[in-house]
Parts: sequence; structure tokens; C-alpha cells
Amino acid sequence: MPALDAGIAGVSRSEIVAASRIIQGRARVTPLLESGTLNARTGGRVLIKPECLQRTGSFKFRGAYNRLAAIPAEDRAGGVVAWSSGNHAQGVACAARLFGMPATIVMPNDAARIKVAGVRHFGAEIVFYDRQTEGREARGTEVLGERGGTFVHPYDDPFVVAGQGTAGLEAAHQMRARDVIPDIALVPCGGGGLVSGVTIGLRSEFPDIDVRSVEPAVHDDMARSLADGRRVAADEGVATICDSLLPPQVGDIAFEVGTKCLGPGLVVSDAEVLEAIAFSLLRLKLVVEPGGAAAMAAALAGRIELRDKTALLVLSGGNADPAMLARALAETGEAAVGRT
Amino acid sequence: MPALDAGIAGVSRSEIVAASRIIQGRARVTPLLESGTLNARTGGRVLIKPECLQRTGSFKFRGAYNRLAAIPAEDRAGGVVAWSSGNHAQGVACAARLFGMPATIVMPNDAARIKVAGVRHFGAEIVFYDRQTEGREARGTEVLGERGGTFVHPYDDPFVVAGQGTAGLEAAHQMRARDVIPDIALVPCGGGGLVSGVTIGLRSEFPDIDVRSVEPAVHDDMARSLADGRRVAADEGVATICDSLLPPQVGDIAFEVGTKCLGPGLVVSDAEVLEAIAFSLLRLKLVVEPGGAAAMAAALAGRIELRDKTALLVLSGGNADPAMLARALAETGEAAVGRT
Repeated sequence: MPALDAGIAGVSRSEIVAASRIIQGRARVTPLLESGTLNARTGGRVLIKPECLQRTGSFKFRGAYNRLAAIPAEDRAGGVVAWSSGNHAQGVACAARLFGMPATIVMPNDAARIKVAGVRHFGAEIVFYDRQTEGREARGTEVLGERGGTFVHPYDDPFVVAGQGTAGLEAAHQMRARDVIPDIALVPCGGGGLVSGVTIGLRSEFPDIDVRSVEPAVHDDMARSLADGRRVAADEGVATICDSLLPPQVGDIAFEVGTKCLGPGLVVSDAEVLEAIAFSLLRLKLVVEPGGAAAMAAALAGRIELRDKTALLVLSGGNADPAMLARALAETGEAAVGRT
Repeated sequence: MPALDAGIAGVSRSEIVAASRIIQGRARVTPLLESGTLNARTGGRVLIKPECLQRTGSFKFRGAYNRLAAIPAEDRAGGVVAWSSGNHAQGVACAARLFGMPATIVMPNDAARIKVAGVRHFGAEIVFYDRQTEGREARGTEVLGERGGTFVHPYDDPFVVAGQGTAGLEAAHQMRARDVIPDIALVPCGGGGLVSGVTIGLRSEFPDIDVRSVEPAVHDDMARSLADGRRVAADEGVATICDSLLPPQVGDIAFEVGTKCLGPGLVVSDAEVLEAIAFSLLRLKLVVEPGGAAAMAAALAGRIELRDKTALLVLSGGNADPAMLARALAETGEAAVGRT
């Protein structure tokens, strides 16, 4: 493994420790949960980090708050601009309100309603765009040009990655407190901010841990980039329920961390994700959104062998619309009840 | 307030501390959660104790394990018999498996399917009865006579009450750690094992806390018993979705603790419970069953003023069938999304 104390792409344990101090008292310390049923299903010991219980309903608040905290006082009045399918949007909107900064968020017009409502709740202005006809970065850059202010990248920013990494370092400390040494960690991957930050955080405590990214099978750019050793873009216009895992490609930071530290990428189907959502609802009593359930889906579908292993599984978000939860319950809920 | 160090009905702080030691490592330490949205809705500060995240999906495991631990070694082979709508059933079945004891559970034939599946999962034998034509205690006593073994009462037993009380003492310690002094606590009430144990646990740390029982409006025997100063039975054959809160009347222990320590009882409607289930799913990202959502329903419906107060709210269980969750989402989910 690389000398992580030197850091990768500008993020090391010390940036994550600093971020932990900055978000303390603002972000929540999410618990580390365990399920006898999940252990039995996988044949291993699975520890769950439910970031769906994080402020704003996803891990994104960690990185957004850490990034906004780094904005110089004289620039705060200028506000922030961000683009996001909804979780980074809520993280930025919530952090901006805490710092008393105006926020403008560029979101797709088909974003989950619960995410749109959350962003509005935090008082941010929303500019919608059409995913079918406009690129979000193009539209976002346009809005940034008009409004000015500080741009908060959803994943390819050292402060954002360090903030997301606090979820990994926090989980590492919680595992240490239980005398648990994890063999492997499964982390949902979109732009890669979470998986890269969590990898650096976990590796700084457990140098030998095998960390894997989990993506929708139809949007597997991290898996293919890791396999090819060069960053490839995701296929465009694919259909998947994992709305929070669809950036055009993984970030520079995530690709660098990935090539140096991640094992082969894992992928899951929408059907596997729906089963994971129903399993989380009925067994764990947790609400997880499609993208947030990707790692759970990989574990339940046996996309990787967890027998006799100790695994950390990140449930990255819980902002699912009622219709999506109802669909998961209708399609796989009854089977999940009977299955023990 | 009464001298609780002397205990009430045989349960004092020391029995709860002893129970905490006995269940340690078996039961889970559930987190203490907080929601900005819930604080805004109530105008107070609400701390949530999510026992839906407890082993077996409800607080019942605490009392069941503590009770079974008290069974003399020579009586263990004889096994245990219990009657329950499903949460005590799962708590007893899980604890019995851990102690290597056979368990027979008498359950209504219309029990939630997820509860029946859970009891089977833990390897207990189930004897069904018809709630419309048979009394559960009559049928249970019959089964106990046939099978023999140790009877585990669902609530009116000092070991069970002390076990449930660990949820209150645990929450008290978690609040102390945050320098929080609660003004009030809202606790779902069926037979009263949870509310009486939690009251003794909380009062031993916070002598002035105002603890309230919350029941279905159509099955308000604790509220009426407290108002009349004498124990009255619940109306029979009433219809409510709160399947876990329907014992014929509160226990002797709960009535004694209630008359000495509880404020006037609160009641909620099924519509208010459904809204609380949807709110918990969409805002807290937690799955709560109807009975388990009673205290949340009282808070959301304004059944008691929480403005400028610090309140502890117990979500007592999360064993809801898919159809019940789908119903809550269909009836009030969309409104819950828009409402911020």
C-alpha cells in the first residue's frame, strides 16, 4: 500500500482529522450497526455505517460543511453555487444556511421530490435543468458565471473528499472500540468522493483493508477505469434507479485514490438494489435510497464473497421518495418478510 | 415524587442497573437521535430513542432476556411459554435460543406476518389463537398447562419491567453525556412494561421528568386508569392499527408506577399514527410500526405542548409489514415530502 501519511491527491489522514474537528457538533456521529440476519445471509460479520441517519439524510453534509468552512470570510457574502442530483445539494444548502451564506443549486428537473423539498427547506435557490438535453456541468458553469460566488464541487475537491473521509475514520474508531479489524469495506460510488475519502480514512487505521467501490452495472465507469488503468467516462443516458450515482465520470482524486488503493470495482443491478432497499426497511428498520443501497445490494446478491470475513458496509443515503419505497416493498417486500 | 431508591412494585434503579449488566453484549445500545425537522415541527428539542433498531426490532428483547436469565439452571430444559402479538414473542424466542431453551409462543392468527416470521426464525414453536373467539390469556394458560415450563409474562413481571427500564437508564446516560436535562418523556403504552420501566430508569437520573404514556384513543385503559385512580379494563374488540398496544389492561406494576409517577395519559388516532410512520420513514429514515410510532404521533399531532421543552421520545418497535408501510406512504407520504 502507498504511504498514506504522505496523502493522495492532497488528502491524508491529517486532512480528515482536521475535517472531523471542523464538522464536530454540526454533522452527526452515525452509529455502527449490526444485523444477525445480515450476518447469517452473508456468512460473515457485517458492520453497517448508516449515513442515511446523517444530517440532510446522506454523507454529503460532511464534505459540504468542511468545504464551506474553508471559504474565506470576505468571500462568504458572495454565496455558493453547486450542482447535484440532490444529496450534495442538500448538504451544501444546509451548510450554507449554517454559515449564513446564500446558495444556488443546479438540479435536474427529474430529481427525487424529497431532495428538492429538502433543498428548499434549507432556503437555497434551485435552478433546474433537463438531463436529456443539457449537461449539468455546462448549465452549472453558466449559472456560476451569472451569479458568481464560490463553486462547491460535488466530489473532486480535497476539502470535500476529506469531509467524506470523516465517515471512514469515524467508522474505524468505532470498530477499534469494539476490537474489530475489518477485512473489507463496500462503498457506493458515483463521482467517488465518498469511496476515496473513506478509503484514506480506513487505510490510515487499517492499512490492509480491501476497499471496493459499488456502482450501478449500467454506469460502471469506476469499475472500468480501475480495470483499464485509465479514466473512462460512463455511458450516457442509461436508465437506473440509482439517481445519486450518475456523474459523467469519477473525479481526478477518486481515480488516483482508486488506482492506488481500491480492489476491482463491483457492480449491481436495479433489481438487486430494490431487494436491498426492502431488506434494509424490513430487517434493519432503516430507509435507504437506491444509490445508498448499492453496497448492501452487492453484499446481499453475493457480488463478493463475505463468508468468514468482517466487512464494513456504508449505507450512504436515505433520501428516497415514497413511490420508490413503495415499489421496493411491492416488488420484493413480501419475499423479504418470509425469508429469514 | 416517591423515594425511587426504595423502588416501586419491586423495581428500583438497582434492578435496572443489574439488568443492564445482564443484557450487555446481548441487547444493543440503541443510539439517541435528533431531527432538525422534528425540532422545528414541535418548537422544542426532541431526542429520539429508536428501539426499532434493537435486536428483534423492538425493546421487548431487553425484558425477555433479563427474565430468562433469572430462570434457574435446573428449569431451563423445561423451556418457556409466552403469549404476545409478536414483539414480546420475538424477544422471548431470541432470548430462549441464546439460552438454549425451547420456547412456545401463543400468538393471534392475525399477527403481523413479519412478527410470525421473526418468531419462526428464532426457532420457537407457535400456537395460534383467534382474537375474536378466544382470550389470549385463557388460551395461553391452557398451553402452559399442556407444555409446562416457565411462563414469561409480557409486562407484569419485575424482571421484564427492569429489563425494559434499561432503555430508560441508557437514554438517561446518553442525555447526561450530552449535558441534556429532559423536561418530558413520551412512551408508547400497551401493558405498561416499557413505560413503567423507563419511568423508573429516567426518574432515577432526572427526578423531575414528566413521563407520559401514549395509547391508541380507542384502547386508552392506562389514560382512564390514571384519571380514575383505579385500574380499568380496555374496551374489547376495538379496531386500531396499533397491534402491539392491545393487552386487556395494564399490569399491576405499570398501574402502581403510573399512579405514583406518570402525568395524565395521552392518546392518538390511527390517522395520527400513520402520519408518524410516514414522517419517521421520510424524515428520520427509520421504520417504525404502528404501536411503536404512538409517542411520535402524539408529538407531531400536538397532543402535548413541546414548545421550548426538551423531550425524550421512545420509538418502541419497527416490526411493520410491507403493506402497513405502503399504506402509511400512500396515505400521508406525499404530504410528508412537501411539508418541511
